[in-house]
Amino acid sequence: MANQQGLVSRAEDFNEWYNTLVLKADLADYGPVRGTMIIKPYGWALWENIQRALDWRFKATGHENAAFPMFIPMSFLEKEASHVKGFAPELAVVTHGGGEELTEPLAVRPTSETIIGHTYARWIQSYRDLPIKLNLWNSVVRWEKRTKLFLRTLEFYWQEGHTAHATAEEALAETRQMLDVYTDFARNEAAIPVIPGEKSENERFAGAEMTLTIEAMMGDGRALQSATSHFMGQNFARAFEIRYLDANNELQYCWTTSWGLSTRFIGAIIMTHGDDQGLVLPPKLAPIQVIVVPIFRQEEERTRVLEAARAIQQELQDNGLRVKVDERDNLTPGFKFNEWELKGVPVRVEIGPRDLQNETVMLARRDVPGREGKESVSRSGLVARVQELLAAIHDNLLERATQFRDSHTVAVSDYGAFKEAVEQGFARVWWAGSSEDEKRIQEETRATLRCIPLEQPGGEGTCFYTGRPATQIAIFGRSY
Amino acid sequence: MANQQGLVSRAEDFNEWYNTLVLKADLADYGPVRGTMIIKPYGWALWENIQRALDWRFKATGHENAAFPMFIPMSFLEKEASHVKGFAPELAVVTHGGGEELTEPLAVRPTSETIIGHTYARWIQSYRDLPIKLNLWNSVVRWEKRTKLFLRTLEFYWQEGHTAHATAEEALAETRQMLDVYTDFARNEAAIPVIPGEKSENERFAGAEMTLTIEAMMGDGRALQSATSHFMGQNFARAFEIRYLDANNELQYCWTTSWGLSTRFIGAIIMTHGDDQGLVLPPKLAPIQVIVVPIFRQEEERTRVLEAARAIQQELQDNGLRVKVDERDNLTPGFKFNEWELKGVPVRVEIGPRDLQNETVMLARRDVPGREGKESVSRSGLVARVQELLAAIHDNLLERATQFRDSHTVAVSDYGAFKEAVEQGFARVWWAGSSEDEKRIQEETRATLRCIPLEQPGGEGTCFYTGRPATQIAIFGRSY
Repeated sequence: MANQQGLVSRAEDFNEWYNTLVLKADLADYGPVRGTMIIKPYGWALWENIQRALDWRFKATGHENAAFPMFIPMSFLEKEASHVKGFAPELAVVTHGGGEELTEPLAVRPTSETIIGHTYARWIQSYRDLPIKLNLWNSVVRWEKRTKLFLRTLEFYWQEGHTAHATAEEALAETRQMLDVYTDFARNEAAIPVIPGEKSENERFAGAEMTLTIEAMMGDGRALQSATSHFMGQNFARAFEIRYLDANNELQYCWTTSWGLSTRFIGAIIMTHGDDQGLVLPPKLAPIQVIVVPIFRQEEERTRVLEAARAIQQELQDNGLRVKVDERDNLTPGFKFNEWELKGVPVRVEIGPRDLQNETVMLARRDVPGREGKESVSRSGLVARVQELLAAIHDNLLERATQFRDSHTVAVSDYGAFKEAVEQGFARVWWAGSSEDEKRIQEETRATLRCIPLEQPGGEGTCFYTGRPATQIAIFGRSY
Repeated sequence: MANQQGLVSRAEDFNEWYNTLVLKADLADYGPVRGTMIIKPYGWALWENIQRALDWRFKATGHENAAFPMFIPMSFLEKEASHVKGFAPELAVVTHGGGEELTEPLAVRPTSETIIGHTYARWIQSYRDLPIKLNLWNSVVRWEKRTKLFLRTLEFYWQEGHTAHATAEEALAETRQMLDVYTDFARNEAAIPVIPGEKSENERFAGAEMTLTIEAMMGDGRALQSATSHFMGQNFARAFEIRYLDANNELQYCWTTSWGLSTRFIGAIIMTHGDDQGLVLPPKLAPIQVIVVPIFRQEEERTRVLEAARAIQQELQDNGLRVKVDERDNLTPGFKFNEWELKGVPVRVEIGPRDLQNETVMLARRDVPGREGKESVSRSGLVARVQELLAAIHDNLLERATQFRDSHTVAVSDYGAFKEAVEQGFARVWWAGSSEDEKRIQEETRATLRCIPLEQPGGEGTCFYTGRPATQIAIFGRSY
């Protein structure tokens, strides 16, 4: 049954809660073509904040942005065997342009490795041209059968990094560095405690020799792959002839990587922190960090209260915060409280005639519901307290999500316990199985190997499935 | 004949100068599909600076960013009669998705008025939902026959603003406001003295009732339409049923606008300011505002000079400037000077052992070639002088481009003089002709009516072409 926010509880129907919330919180809407998505201003502002937080990290690690065409000749996609196998079934194909049938159909990019490979082969001649470290902010198209806003849409927005290096070591270091960037971003900007790890062969990117991932646990215990970083070895270099003359004037193949994070991550934010009242946005990424709600009855109060509300907005903005005053005069304060709770604004400031008189304001934090999250502070101490609160909310969200994940992760040593564990979260196991074992487990339990965590306890155990001696721990879970 | 930069002179072959410069300056490259463009990091950084300079202006005038799908059902495009006529011949069409033929083919957006119209009709119910003022940063596709990097490519990057209003007055004010934003941006960020004006009916956007434009003059005297702002009247509102209940509970059609500026503007920057040595970038948009070239012979000098160069970079960056030190050790200073001149960096700092001794550095400004543009300044006064120089370069570029435009604009009163005028620039005329007259003039002279400038002298004259009494001045020119 829906609550006053128009949401069912997460416990009742997590899927329904999510779908309704995305629409009601004005994050996104369905596009007219099946499976497409309109990202509304509130959702796009969140994405812009994600972009900013990633973009400076990319630039600080020596990457530059560029733009590549969305149209890729079909023949390019066929050059790397496993790549075409992975992406061919999902392509959108342009067959006509300018009123005429094209001699070669064009794919709308599902990802840009092939056009990058073709281009890098032209750009790279000598070791002096290396490394090339580019990042693209764009959208890509994958013709998915089942779609869900943010998580899986025909077109989605992302960044894709593409680098080429002279040595395997350098490319491997890049692959790992970018996973570390994503891990840092997820924890310190989105308050999401991800598990960095390596994908098994089954789950690797089409054409990669190694895929690293950050895996997050959603509020229903399911896993969400939140970003990936791929070491391609020389697969694309050989397919596209990306070669360089080394210092000894010998021709060598390059080593390439790619890495990406998409608007899917918005889904991760919603499902990690959201509660039955709606979104709970991490303060560093929230489009609005502070909502100011003026409270008044008579018209003569109105002017004074609005003036005070605007002064608060100005002062908080001058301190670098994103602030909005809700001046709508056809809605009650109570209605506004609900709406901004639904939209997950981290801190609410309430100000009314009595506050003016007492030189105080009322603060409410989104992550602690009800009276417990409210406090009256002196007007002069407002900025400092809001800054403290935003930091405290970030820490609390991260802590809470970590506790949730850990309490829904069970170390198991037999298949029975495994099946129970993946019903409600992650199973942590010693693992020495094969790709076929993985597939069987997936068929039987719908759980997949999410990753082999980078952080390993060391030592040795017994594989929960095969009974063979195992040297590594794996995380299994049902995934989005 | 190509100079040391590998460029022919602009006087010799402006077109060849442009095409070579775009490639040599590392702004862009050709994509593998005919007519597509790869924007390289240096070009994309320029576009990012353009985006930043526009984006805050859009937000300051109450607009929000959002994202709409690139795929538009073909049937949408057919709903507004003149719109489909304008865009149908240029469409790229997706006919297959996920391995199957689609029941309805999809256009890759050539512009988003139709999908916006469809969506606004769903979003708008009451006058309280108005105005809606959105902006999209994306790429669009138009299947052009003849292409040229930045100026006309199958896919290009732009922003498209789309607004819906309750009254015609408000929509007209929006249309004009956004033209003013573009005019301000062009002058104060890009140092391009554009002429704001209205397009004639012939040159209007497909579906608009009024199109406003900013027109710039390129270094060869030709016109470049640099941004446009359209008043749609109720055309799209009627085609897509965008209606609202007014305060009296009566159903009304909305009034809509759209406005855009694209990567074409990079072409305008190149062709307005560039000289025979290469790009001359306006300081406020230049990806690198200051290039520091260290000069040394012996290894023991190297360390000291590089250290000083990096300290200069740090100090300038701390003052908010975009600075790079060219540390490449396989190239001579002379080679580097040429390369950064080609790339149009506004200010060069040279520092060598003698400068260290004298506590000075050498500055060179890109807009004044040779010795005249060089000066030695004290190390302690460097930051202040660089800031002065950047402002002076902006002013000089704007002044120079204004003088060039004015000296290539001739007020003419007969067709003979008109034909001479449009050979080398703009013709400024009294105008009372019809659409048919315009077409005839275009056939005979290749010149089109660029705009009716918003700023009019008033009074009355005689139309240069029809001999009829005329109350308005028009600008004609050959255009890109």
